[in-house]
Amino acid sequence: MAEDAKKLYEELIEKRRKAALLGSAGSILGWDERTYMPRGGVEHRANQMALISGMAHEMFTSPEIGELLSKLEDSELVKERTSPEAANIREIRRSYNKDTKLPRELVEEISSTTTKAQGIWQDARKKADFSIFKDILGKVFELNFRVAEAYGYEKDPYDALLDDYEPHATTEEVARVFAGLRDDLVPFVEKIKDSGKHPDMSIIENDYDIHRQKLFAKAASAAIGFDYSKGRLDETTHPFCTGIGYGDTRILTRYNPKHFGQAFFGVIHESGHGIYEQGLRKDENFGLPMGQSVSLGIHESQSLCWENIVSRGKPFWKHFFPRAQQTYPEILGDVKFDDFYFAINDVRPSFIRVDADEVTYCLHILLRFEIEQGIIHKEIKVADIPGIWNEKFTEYFGITPPDDAQGCLQDIHWSMGALGYFPTYALGNLYAAQFYAKALKDMPNLHDEFEKGNFSSLKKWLNEKIHFQGKRYPATELVKEVTGKPLSHKPFMEYLEKKFSPLYLD
Amino acid sequence: MAEDAKKLYEELIEKRRKAALLGSAGSILGWDERTYMPRGGVEHRANQMALISGMAHEMFTSPEIGELLSKLEDSELVKERTSPEAANIREIRRSYNKDTKLPRELVEEISSTTTKAQGIWQDARKKADFSIFKDILGKVFELNFRVAEAYGYEKDPYDALLDDYEPHATTEEVARVFAGLRDDLVPFVEKIKDSGKHPDMSIIENDYDIHRQKLFAKAASAAIGFDYSKGRLDETTHPFCTGIGYGDTRILTRYNPKHFGQAFFGVIHESGHGIYEQGLRKDENFGLPMGQSVSLGIHESQSLCWENIVSRGKPFWKHFFPRAQQTYPEILGDVKFDDFYFAINDVRPSFIRVDADEVTYCLHILLRFEIEQGIIHKEIKVADIPGIWNEKFTEYFGITPPDDAQGCLQDIHWSMGALGYFPTYALGNLYAAQFYAKALKDMPNLHDEFEKGNFSSLKKWLNEKIHFQGKRYPATELVKEVTGKPLSHKPFMEYLEKKFSPLYLD
Repeated sequence: MAEDAKKLYEELIEKRRKAALLGSAGSILGWDERTYMPRGGVEHRANQMALISGMAHEMFTSPEIGELLSKLEDSELVKERTSPEAANIREIRRSYNKDTKLPRELVEEISSTTTKAQGIWQDARKKADFSIFKDILGKVFELNFRVAEAYGYEKDPYDALLDDYEPHATTEEVARVFAGLRDDLVPFVEKIKDSGKHPDMSIIENDYDIHRQKLFAKAASAAIGFDYSKGRLDETTHPFCTGIGYGDTRILTRYNPKHFGQAFFGVIHESGHGIYEQGLRKDENFGLPMGQSVSLGIHESQSLCWENIVSRGKPFWKHFFPRAQQTYPEILGDVKFDDFYFAINDVRPSFIRVDADEVTYCLHILLRFEIEQGIIHKEIKVADIPGIWNEKFTEYFGITPPDDAQGCLQDIHWSMGALGYFPTYALGNLYAAQFYAKALKDMPNLHDEFEKGNFSSLKKWLNEKIHFQGKRYPATELVKEVTGKPLSHKPFMEYLEKKFSPLYLD
Repeated sequence: MAEDAKKLYEELIEKRRKAALLGSAGSILGWDERTYMPRGGVEHRANQMALISGMAHEMFTSPEIGELLSKLEDSELVKERTSPEAANIREIRRSYNKDTKLPRELVEEISSTTTKAQGIWQDARKKADFSIFKDILGKVFELNFRVAEAYGYEKDPYDALLDDYEPHATTEEVARVFAGLRDDLVPFVEKIKDSGKHPDMSIIENDYDIHRQKLFAKAASAAIGFDYSKGRLDETTHPFCTGIGYGDTRILTRYNPKHFGQAFFGVIHESGHGIYEQGLRKDENFGLPMGQSVSLGIHESQSLCWENIVSRGKPFWKHFFPRAQQTYPEILGDVKFDDFYFAINDVRPSFIRVDADEVTYCLHILLRFEIEQGIIHKEIKVADIPGIWNEKFTEYFGITPPDDAQGCLQDIHWSMGALGYFPTYALGNLYAAQFYAKALKDMPNLHDEFEKGNFSSLKKWLNEKIHFQGKRYPATELVKEVTGKPLSHKPFMEYLEKKFSPLYLD
């Protein structure tokens, strides 16, 4: 029996590996499409990617995998719930069920409807006219309901959707944590706003030669631990990170010649994702849950930890500011450290989520999460979204969007059918702060090391505590394993207060 | 019946297209491996490529394709031998047979033996010691015999090998044409050598800033007709061209900061391949023989036509030399046109094939072809290759290789098991000259247009006569169709004499 289970398990992971290997060829095609592909190649590339994702899907959902899983779930391999074998079996089952539960007609309807919806959304946003988008958005939400029903759920249909992005998370738990966050964050933002303090933004909004931006950002990204012998940095329109496979993780950014920070913090952000991907044990675990990231929220916690907590922090710039001055003597030569530090930590309520600072950012998410709740619980009608959006926005930020392009039409997510995605951004902030507080407790000298340009202790800590674990634990359990406590908004608020009070409130 | 055949045909080409589409994803992986892949990605990439080529092979050789072919070969679709349908069926059959005739054990033995042989060859070349390479080379040749037997042949086992690279060609015909070429070319080279004339090579062997090389080469490549909205130019170690699919053809080169011509003529050469790939009707014929190149020889004829005949010609430089002077005023500003033209057409016997000029180049091939004949007909023993090589080399070039690294160990081909490949290089030269002579007859103003920087007539002519035909005709027939005459070495010799006599013999 033991022999048998081992053999079946080998068979299962071999099948998964093969499917993932094919899928990873699709990742290279996707990367190429967004970097170097000539524009004439669009149609052929779409054909290639459809074929590969179709073939990989077929391999991931083959009945043999279902049969192997059923047999293995009765075996001794799943006894120890967090053993690599048990975790792999549990998570392969999870994705197998999700992949096989949606009827083909529904998948096709989603694909055609969301393709159409994205076009209409672009037009509506351009014209700042929600009425154009309303009907198709209603159809997309209707499909979201059907997806939730097809997946099935215990308490809340939103659970089924959230699970696509933050596996094993529950709406109830997320809502509880977010409510606490809102209660603390809204007044904190208000106090900062009322302080009337503002940095001199001309320090970072200036003529920053792109060639030097590239060199400086790449050097910093290598310094924090992104391994360029196993990765690359390229340019693209919408920055992202893609882990192709063992030894090949690629990050992408865009450069703004009029801004120091957009590319710099963008590169550090993507490097955070990249360090996670490089830290997943893809040599032995490629294609297996044990070699995959836990969730979008945990992935985001890694990018935000490096971007916001580390690279917008004082210790980091104790090391890098003199180097920035050497790189841009004509702009930064005479700038004082404190003024630079204040400028890269400018906080002000603004309408667009992707441009938001780290203090106000989560409010953008809370707003969206609450509206998504209303939609999925049928308490909000699609036509009422703009009004509710603006009302909530005014309540949280103290300012009102001048139009829907700067309001409920700003994000692509809903048009793509990605209901349940937004919460992961805020969860990322909360995970990051809670992890980091523990890291600081474990390594009290961390900031002294940062000031000397040494970031390896933090990277090693994240590697061991988080990256090497793959999907062994669901996110909520991982947080408990690593920090000893369940997820809370407190560490995040403590971090914000400690960092921003001296800048704005003292 | 007509209905039925049409339906079966659609089924056949659908299967081919799908296999080719998957294979073309492998082309992107291969391109990426040779351009941008981080070095840590080697192992994962090898796994991806093995999987994709294995899956594509399985699709290309599926029994269903064999059954469809058998039915279609009895249908009315093959009546008109050169109709697109008949050509597709004929050529799919040809590759299907080849792909299915080699037993799996033989394929695996070839793979492991040639991998080993390439390593040993590198070592032997480094040490200029043929004795190290001898035994494994004997094994590779042994496998070549077995391949020829497995493929089957009518007259000559070499036919079966040649057919991999130059489909439908016969050894007898190639040998006849090559013999004529040798008889005319050897004395012509001797006369040039005896003339004692040499250009001033410091004109092109000089400090050529790479940034300007890139701009200048790319501009010229676009001018002759390589379409950059459907293609790219990148850097790599071993230049090549890869046609990914409709709208996506990529050429690659390397830059030598000490030489004007290596990258420039390299880019034009690869552009010639690229213009052919872009001219194949891959929109409607992707993955089908009617959308594929005829043979390696015909492919090479396109690169050589643009590289040697056009871009080393006087009319081309009437247009481009003033631009080269503007680009490199510090080197070319005071150089006379005739001196530059002579320098880019330097002819001198040399030991290394890949460095050879267009006059002596074919002699390198004739030598290899004759030795390959001797091997496959068991008239030459492996151990005797170095002696025979040097003897023939001295006879053809009037100089003797100082060691085997500059003699019979210089090329990778035999270690890869690629017996029958070399002839295609010389055939390319002959095809190119014969095509070009006809083009000049059809368009007497061609050179006037070149002098004005207009290359579109030639490109259009090649498009219509050759590229759009895909594999409709085997190479020998295509030559007759296009030029009205069977392949001959005469147009090539006439071209050489007309071009090089004024430089060396008048």
